[in-house]
This record gives sequence, structure tokens and C-alpha cells, in this order.
Amino acid sequence: MSEPEMRPKAEKLDAADELAGMRAQFVLDDTVYLDGNSLGALPRSVPGRVEDVVRRQWGSLRIRSWDESGWWTAPERIGDRIAPLVGAAPGQIVVGDSTSVNVFKAVVGAVRLADGGSEGRSGRDEVLVDATTFPTDGYIAASAARLTGCTLRPVTPDEVPDALSERTAAVLLNHVDYRTGRLHDLPSLTAAIHEVGAISVWDLCHSAGALPVGLDEHGVDLAVGCTYKYLNGGPGSPAYLYVRETHQPRFDSPLPGWNSHADPFGMTPDYTPAPGALRGRVGTPDILSMLALEAALEVWDDVSINAVRTKSLALTDFFLECVESYVPEGTVESVTPSPHTERGSQVALRCTDAGNVMRRLIDRGVIGDFREPDVLRFGFTPLYVGFGDVERAARVLGEMF
Amino acid sequence: MSEPEMRPKAEKLDAADELAGMRAQFVLDDTVYLDGNSLGALPRSVPGRVEDVVRRQWGSLRIRSWDESGWWTAPERIGDRIAPLVGAAPGQIVVGDSTSVNVFKAVVGAVRLADGGSEGRSGRDEVLVDATTFPTDGYIAASAARLTGCTLRPVTPDEVPDALSERTAAVLLNHVDYRTGRLHDLPSLTAAIHEVGAISVWDLCHSAGALPVGLDEHGVDLAVGCTYKYLNGGPGSPAYLYVRETHQPRFDSPLPGWNSHADPFGMTPDYTPAPGALRGRVGTPDILSMLALEAALEVWDDVSINAVRTKSLALTDFFLECVESYVPEGTVESVTPSPHTERGSQVALRCTDAGNVMRRLIDRGVIGDFREPDVLRFGFTPLYVGFGDVERAARVLGEMF
Repeated sequence: MSEPEMRPKAEKLDAADELAGMRAQFVLDDTVYLDGNSLGALPRSVPGRVEDVVRRQWGSLRIRSWDESGWWTAPERIGDRIAPLVGAAPGQIVVGDSTSVNVFKAVVGAVRLADGGSEGRSGRDEVLVDATTFPTDGYIAASAARLTGCTLRPVTPDEVPDALSERTAAVLLNHVDYRTGRLHDLPSLTAAIHEVGAISVWDLCHSAGALPVGLDEHGVDLAVGCTYKYLNGGPGSPAYLYVRETHQPRFDSPLPGWNSHADPFGMTPDYTPAPGALRGRVGTPDILSMLALEAALEVWDDVSINAVRTKSLALTDFFLECVESYVPEGTVESVTPSPHTERGSQVALRCTDAGNVMRRLIDRGVIGDFREPDVLRFGFTPLYVGFGDVERAARVLGEMF
Repeated sequence: MSEPEMRPKAEKLDAADELAGMRAQFVLDDTVYLDGNSLGALPRSVPGRVEDVVRRQWGSLRIRSWDESGWWTAPERIGDRIAPLVGAAPGQIVVGDSTSVNVFKAVVGAVRLADGGSEGRSGRDEVLVDATTFPTDGYIAASAARLTGCTLRPVTPDEVPDALSERTAAVLLNHVDYRTGRLHDLPSLTAAIHEVGAISVWDLCHSAGALPVGLDEHGVDLAVGCTYKYLNGGPGSPAYLYVRETHQPRFDSPLPGWNSHADPFGMTPDYTPAPGALRGRVGTPDILSMLALEAALEVWDDVSINAVRTKSLALTDFFLECVESYVPEGTVESVTPSPHTERGSQVALRCTDAGNVMRRLIDRGVIGDFREPDVLRFGFTPLYVGFGDVERAARVLGEMF
């Protein structure tokens, strides 16, 4: 098929799109923005809220805002707002710190949970980490392993079942691979990890807000994620930590800051951890960024994550179809799996000279990104990307060769 | 003396105040705000900047802003802006994460520096921590000690010289005590720490922006501080980490996130730390809060920290004088040292029923805060507090009894 066939098809798909109205809630322009998996677009609800936080809450109320504007309880309140998007009941997620810092809390916490209070005598001294992971997870897991006396063993997710043993303390995996867009099988991998008595830690950066995660349903132990991709929280907005309710009483954070104390204003020299998810908190929450995120999450009020997933798959299907139609055979190769069960919300295409191709695409108003050494990465945010965008992106891509 | 004497004195002091003009750069009202040591007032430069960051940099430029708006280099650029305020040459400070997280980096990093690469065979297995510290430092130091196989030993700063030994790896101290406002002797304590070959870590939360610190001059090894008190960065604004230049090549962070990698976008599985202060970075910087802080720091462009210190001491001197004049003898007792060499920029008064007294003071427009169990805490930010404010605060306090 070619342009005369694909354009009307895009129009038809857009006309039938239940989520089409959501686009109006974002600030967008006439480019095709396929980099929401790096930095989500600005929700219209954010600028006014941030202005209020700065001018009134900080400028006028000042310290009174810690109570009166709900600053103090923001980490757990916003955590509860994220919870339904990742299939978690309330009281298990706190927002704060970067993803890297939360990976550290989670991996050290997981090793300690697996150890079961035996002070290193459990024989569980191995941490498995996804060898294809976004690098920061690997670097931080190495540090967590070093500090807890464990060995770090990088394996591909496919190799995890065979690598698991009674030596395994914790396993850190990505739900969706940042480079290929491959969706890993969270339910079965979590079950395999549990079978040997180890603790699972899932990184949801590239899945939360794009597809259902089902943390509670699948028995995930610990999870982390960022909020600036499909959750549109803004550049470097705070990440989150999920600690399964049943693990909370024994969750032993390596970063026991005063915000995680049972009585933070008691200012006692002895540390007594707060009950529940709060023990994942560390220092004073970063209010400006955190309340911008809270405003950004309002766009989810009437959106079902299942509807988002349905559209996401339709968008990536249609993109692959358009690429096949517009792009000369043999010039690009998708490294994103075809089966829906193995695909996140992005499509990664390998091609020669990918860095230059992406620069030229951006010049033509199609915004994706380039990942070393040869990958064009296109992310599809169902809340604001339409099928017409998809058709245009593939058409412009075809003109590159 | 009484009102007829103190008011004209305040007017005279205000008239001679070189920094009086700075007040116009902040958003203030008709209250007397003596809680800038908890949350600094809003600088007028901030709201417009934040609006630009949200609407244009995020909303329009989106990911392009990582380069074009200088987002990526913000942690070290803003670190260099803080540097002169704490007596540091450029290239030694990065901004990011909370104070608690930076205390963790610093204490673990200090233990490793003290160990000198001997992998625990140096015999340095003790971390000293200020027993009177703001609790989070103690909690985090305990975690750092536990993870590095050290023993934590809480001592008062006075006891530090006697407690030091060839077993000491690191010493974590506060420059100014959060409760009493006592200024500790950073030069002589740092020298004593060095005499036994240990590493000093200073927490500058209550001194940076209120008095000269002289990090380089006094040979401080590592330091951390928050930016929302005397630096007016906003609620929960990011903290900073100072790593002395000579230590940077061996600084071994327990949080080696991808932002501290020598080639972060290489996305290599092996970790190679960046040179310089950058290795104190961790994850993606929190841009909204960080650029609000950058705007807030503009107020320091033409201010000398020595002038700030001179005014700070004049303010606290005058406050103590007014308290003596207005407050019935025997009702309050200052726990802040009288000698200038031992006083930060706050005055802490003990009195019966302090919680209630502070609530009534706040109702009367004098904003300080209460610290358990019996302390009224008044912070004096020389950039926006005047001598008339001081006189009014003491006068209203006198009417409480």
C-alpha cells in the first residue's frame, strides 16, 4: 500500500479513536512528537498549578504550606494517585528521589528481605540483573550488591529462569526494554523468582502509563519507575517506589532519612521506621516538581489503562504497517517484537547512519530519538499521539532513504 | 531599656544597613518572618523563571531543552554558583537529590577515601557523628556505617578531639546546630580530624548563605547542604555535595547513577565515573526545582557573604538585647551561645509551654518555629530581615508572658 491507501486508513482510525479527545489536554504543536517515552508533553493542567504553588503556597503561605497545602503528605498522596495505573492498591507507593536512588533502596531492601533477618547466613548472596537494562539500573545494582556482600550476575531476561537458584537474593528486571521496546513477561518471571524464594524488583519506567502492569495481581515484591515519560510529570520529575504491603513491616531501607521516621518531628536520635509505604521516603520532598506531577496526573482521571493499551498496540501496529508501506525494503529493521504480548509502546528501528537519519527526521518535524549505536526510537503516547501522526512519521521516514 | 529606647535604635540600625535594599528582591508581607532557617522567602526572580521553564522550555522545546536550555549541565553549573558562598573554587559542587541522600554519598565516600583502597584492611572502622545533630544525619550515617562494616559512634562536637583515633574513618559534623544555633569550630575540628588521618564531612544546612564557610581554605574534605533555608531555593529544593578537588579522583560514590558516568549516553554496561565533581551526580536532575533554585541564587550577585555575616551578628545581638529589654526576667533562656565565634544566624530560646507560645506569636504575625521539647527558634536571614522586625518580634514575645 502507499499514501493513497494509508492516509484514509489513518483518518478512519482517528475517527474511531476513543482517546482522541485527550490530546486537547496537552500543549502540542504541529510536529509529530514520538519522544514521550523520553519526556512526556506538557499537560495543560500543570502551568497554572505550578504558578499557584510558587506564588501562593510558597510566596504567601511559606512554611504554613507544609500542613495547609498538603506538602508534607504529598509523597504518599501522589503515590496513591499512581497506584491504580500500575495495578496497586493504595498505601504501597511513595513518590520522591530519582529512579536511580529508588533502584538502590529497592535492591538493598530486596536483599535484606530475601535474607529474612539471618544477617547474611541465609546463603543468598547473588543479585541477578537484566544485562540489557538501561545502564543506571546495572550500575546501581552493582553498588547495592557490593555494599550488601552479594555478587552481581548480569543475565538476559530469557536466561533468568535457568540462572535462578537458592543462592539468588534479588532479581532486578525491566518491564519494557528501553532500547528495543520489548515487553518482558512480568507474571511468569515473578513466579519463577518466587519459586526459588528470591525477591523481584521491577523497573516500570517504560511501561507505567502505557500498559497495565498488575503489581498486586502478579505478586511483585518491589518496583520503581520514573514519572516523566508516559506519566508526563515534567523533566526529572520525582520517581516512585512500590513496596508490597506484606513486605512493608520488614522493608529495611538503606536510606532511612527523617521523612521515613515514625515520628519525624520528634527529632529523636533513635530511628524507628514509619509503618507502611512511608518508610520508602528519605528527605524533604521536592515540592515544586512533585506538585507539578500531581497536576499532570489529573489527565488520568477518566482514562482506563486498558483503553490506553488497546490504542498503544493499534498505534505501533499501524506504524509498522506504514513503515512497511513507505520505507524501501531492506533499509530499516525493527528490533521491537511483533507479538503484542512482547511489545511495549515504542518501536525501535535499526538502520545505517541512524544518528543522522534522526537529525533529519527532527528537522522535518518528526521527533523521536537516537540510541547508540544504530537505533531510531519512536515512542507512542496514546493520550496525545494519533494515527495521522503515525502515518506522517512513517511517510517522512520513507523519504529519508 | 524599653520601647521608647529600642524603637529609635532599630530605626537607626535600619538606616545604616547596607543590605536593606535586598529586601525588595523578596516577596514578603507585614508579618515578621523569622523562619528563613526552615524555608527561605520567595525571591522575586523565581516565578517568571519557573513559568518560562514550564511553558517554553518544557512545553515548547521539550527534549531539545536538555541541550538548548542547559538542563543537562544544571547540576554542576548551579553548584558553581553556590561555590563562592561556601568558599569553594569552581568544579567541586554538584546540586541534586535531598540532603539525606547527599549525606549518604558523603559518609560512604568518606569511609572509602579513609580506607585508601585497602578494602577494609586499613583498620579504620569507626564513623563519628555529632550526637546533637539533626536526626536525619545520624540515621543516614548509621546506615552508611552498617553498609561499610563500620561502627557508628555518636559524640558531641566538643568530644570529637578526644574521640579521634587511628580507627576513625570519617566524622560527620554540623557547622551550625539546628536546634541551639551553635556554630562549631570548623577549622580546628577539621584540622584535628586530619591529624589522625580521617575524613571530615560537614553539613552546612544552617550555615551556607548565613556566614562564611571557607571549605577550600580550611581543607574540608566533603560537605553537603540544603538550598531551601538561607539560599531561598524553595520547598524541598535540591541539595548539594562538595567533593574537594584532590579527593575527586578517588571519590567512590555508593550511588553511581548514569548521570555520573564519564559517557552517560554511551549506555555501556560498565561503569566509568566522570571526572571531577560530576561523579557526585546520580539520576536525571529534577529540572523544575533546580532551575527555580538557579533563579533564586541571582539575589547573591552583588552580595558579599562577609557583609551578610556582619549583619547577621548585628541582628542576633540586637534580638538578644531586645529580649532582655522586653521579656520578663526568668521567663526565657537563650540556648544560643553569646560569643560571636560560636553563634550561627539564629537564636533559640527555651521557655515553658513553648509550643503554645509559638502558636500565639504566629497569630500575632511573628513567624518562628517550635522544636521539641521546649525551644522557640528564630532564624535571621540578613537579606530580608531588618532591625525593626527584630524589635517587633521581641516586643510581641514580651507580651506573651
